[in-house]
Amino acid sequence: MVLLFSNCQQQDNNPTAQEETQSIFPKGELGSKENFTGKAWASSLVANDSTYNTLVGNVYFEPGARSNWHIHPAGQILIITDGEGYHQIKGQARQTLKKGDVVTCPPNMMHWHGASPEKGMQQMYIIPNTEKGIVKWLHPVTDDVYASEQ
Amino acid sequence: MVLLFSNCQQQDNNPTAQEETQSIFPKGELGSKENFTGKAWASSLVANDSTYNTLVGNVYFEPGARSNWHIHPAGQILIITDGEGYHQIKGQARQTLKKGDVVTCPPNMMHWHGASPEKGMQQMYIIPNTEKGIVKWLHPVTDDVYASEQ
Repeated sequence: MVLLFSNCQQQDNNPTAQEETQSIFPKGELGSKENFTGKAWASSLVANDSTYNTLVGNVYFEPGARSNWHIHPAGQILIITDGEGYHQIKGQARQTLKKGDVVTCPPNMMHWHGASPEKGMQQMYIIPNTEKGIVKWLHPVTDDVYASEQ
Repeated sequence: MVLLFSNCQQQDNNPTAQEETQSIFPKGELGSKENFTGKAWASSLVANDSTYNTLVGNVYFEPGARSNWHIHPAGQILIITDGEGYHQIKGQARQTLKKGDVVTCPPNMMHWHGASPEKGMQQMYIIPNTEKGIVKWLHPVTDDVYASEQ
């Protein structure tokens, strides 16, 4: 089976923020308010199946937007293709991310990721070994945690 | 463990061709003449380990450059971030790829990928389930096969 996704023209629901970053993929669907603070747009690139056991997608975080804390039973790989943002693993310092950065989060570690306050972030994600599970969503990242470098 | 790769300034060994595409990652190392026709530059993004069992990297194919035929025991996912190129699975028609396209090649299928004759291609690759093996290199793609749409 060969999957081929065209690079569709994206809808520009927020021209001011979107202009800050270059997008490779369609903007996609607005993420649920249950799992995100602010606006995060998710686009699926490779759906989960038993051949690859791998989920791939893109998320565009508008400035200030971030995921809730969450856990991936088999870990996650994040690849930043434009903009600026953060990644934090529970108990570790917040990392600043920019275009070309690649970070990993090990299996069963709590983490969150999102844009910086001033600039959005284009972020691809890879969830490997999905036979072990995909994601367990937890509580929101408070403004204090989001703003702290620790 | 957290891996963080900075977006280093890339060396511009071939300004004319490189100007055709936008790069997210460092240009990397020139691929072996044994496995590539023309110049293909490879940059590792996630090294193989037993936590993720996943290899991620970027290849910049200069115009006309392509891989040999090869096989991935667990398959491969290709993500095109700029430029234009081709992907062909043995026995199937050649596919034309452009920015934003995502294609998969199933386990144990012969395939090749590379740039178009006129324009280079920036291509990320994901090799999942590396515990099953990574790659078996085969013979070069002839000029006739490269030029044929079938």
